[in-house]
Amino acid sequence: MATAQLLDGKRTAQIIREELAKKIEEHYERTMLRPGLAVVLVGDDPASKIYVRNKHRASTQVGMDSRQIILPAHSTTSQVLETIEMLNQDPSIHGILLQLPVPRHIDAQVILRHLDPRKDVDGLTPTNMGRLMAGQSGLRPCTPLGIIELLDRYHVPLEGQRVVVIGRSQLVGRPLALMFVERNATVTIVHSKTPNAWDITREADIVVAAVGHAHLVQPNWIKPGATVIDVGINRTESGIVGDVDFDSVAAMASRITPVPGGIGPMTIAMLLSNTWQAFQETVGS
Amino acid sequence: MATAQLLDGKRTAQIIREELAKKIEEHYERTMLRPGLAVVLVGDDPASKIYVRNKHRASTQVGMDSRQIILPAHSTTSQVLETIEMLNQDPSIHGILLQLPVPRHIDAQVILRHLDPRKDVDGLTPTNMGRLMAGQSGLRPCTPLGIIELLDRYHVPLEGQRVVVIGRSQLVGRPLALMFVERNATVTIVHSKTPNAWDITREADIVVAAVGHAHLVQPNWIKPGATVIDVGINRTESGIVGDVDFDSVAAMASRITPVPGGIGPMTIAMLLSNTWQAFQETVGS
Repeated sequence: MATAQLLDGKRTAQIIREELAKKIEEHYERTMLRPGLAVVLVGDDPASKIYVRNKHRASTQVGMDSRQIILPAHSTTSQVLETIEMLNQDPSIHGILLQLPVPRHIDAQVILRHLDPRKDVDGLTPTNMGRLMAGQSGLRPCTPLGIIELLDRYHVPLEGQRVVVIGRSQLVGRPLALMFVERNATVTIVHSKTPNAWDITREADIVVAAVGHAHLVQPNWIKPGATVIDVGINRTESGIVGDVDFDSVAAMASRITPVPGGIGPMTIAMLLSNTWQAFQETVGS
Repeated sequence: MATAQLLDGKRTAQIIREELAKKIEEHYERTMLRPGLAVVLVGDDPASKIYVRNKHRASTQVGMDSRQIILPAHSTTSQVLETIEMLNQDPSIHGILLQLPVPRHIDAQVILRHLDPRKDVDGLTPTNMGRLMAGQSGLRPCTPLGIIELLDRYHVPLEGQRVVVIGRSQLVGRPLALMFVERNATVTIVHSKTPNAWDITREADIVVAAVGHAHLVQPNWIKPGATVIDVGINRTESGIVGDVDFDSVAAMASRITPVPGGIGPMTIAMLLSNTWQAFQETVGS
């Protein structure tokens, strides 16, 4: 039986979206301007199409102008670049997101280098990554941002806390570690080459699992009373599950995120929040 | 009495410089081309002038063309930018280093954003920071690079080892943590807001102190047999000392770097090595 408090990402994301919708409407009434978000999808990967559709729906619901640009799978890097250039120049577009992964023959890093950092609502351009490294303000990647925001909304203290991030991806593990450091937490990154990772995670006040390995985190990985954040989205025969063995770990933790309904919705909410931020920085508040 | 093996940065840097000098000479005999390094100093801070002079001497000794550009302290950001632009365009210059810190009225980040990432031998431009975040090859900051290189030259294993980095600066702590992660170490960043940091450093196989706090690291911070790297350069009444209480910690550690003669000379050697790498990538090997 679960004893931990549920960190409800779905509900928190809903609140954030309502807050944004209100701000966007007020801004529109004053200025007749709305934030514009363009999502660029190359190819027709079914999972990516669902993600793009969800982003489109979410941004429309909060009153943004949403544009979906779907390029054929055989597009070249320079054809994708042309689209990005056009969106960089377009004053009605304030946020641009390149849906990843792109087909193998396209160099995502080249494209990210050309994306205007002021419109980089996924926080993945070198400029924004560099700003994160330098501890400067800038657009941050949506998933790590959603994790920090969820913890903040539930008043989970970060300063001086021991945090262990499991996973070292560019999208989650690495930027998240730096964002926790910014917030004065003491952060450890563990990964597939860490022997006996549970010896380390067991010391943590906050454990974040972001590896894509179903049920990796078991109760013996967790200090009693710790906060557990599950970023994993793993498709199994029994449906979508996280990286955390929810039922058994929930009996040990003081707070835990569910999958689904945890970090997933927060990621989309942060995409909207980043687009709002980019919009405000262009047109003024 | 010290029992630890000394990780001799001075001697190792000397070896690296001799290796580079040989490669540069061979390249020159074939192509009549030499790597060119430009160091830009704004103002006349005495410590900075010494650093610039040392870099000039070191680069000249290995057969590089060295250029020192000293701009008056009252230069504006756009005047410094003009110099950087000129060096970006100059085909005889392969490495550009902006000596930090710059006077307060100059925005170093703006200048770094305009520095050609291919010539960024300090590894501090957003592009190179972003590449480090993304786990891609690129020019890396010299001090962290020098630490990893010194450990490699002494065959200190990194994979699967527990590393604690004390300090979270943009120049050392943060990039170093990511570089250890790249090398499959398990890395923790501790800092001034970490309560009882010694409880954490005491678990580490490798401890790196990079905070600028004389004698912070005492024997009770160190697991017997650990490797201790001291990046600190603190001016005290009894001369220059590191962040580690050398004599007492050396009795506990299995390997330790001295100050001076440890990471300092390695940093300059890595500046030369980065310039050589930038040169090769422009003109070919």
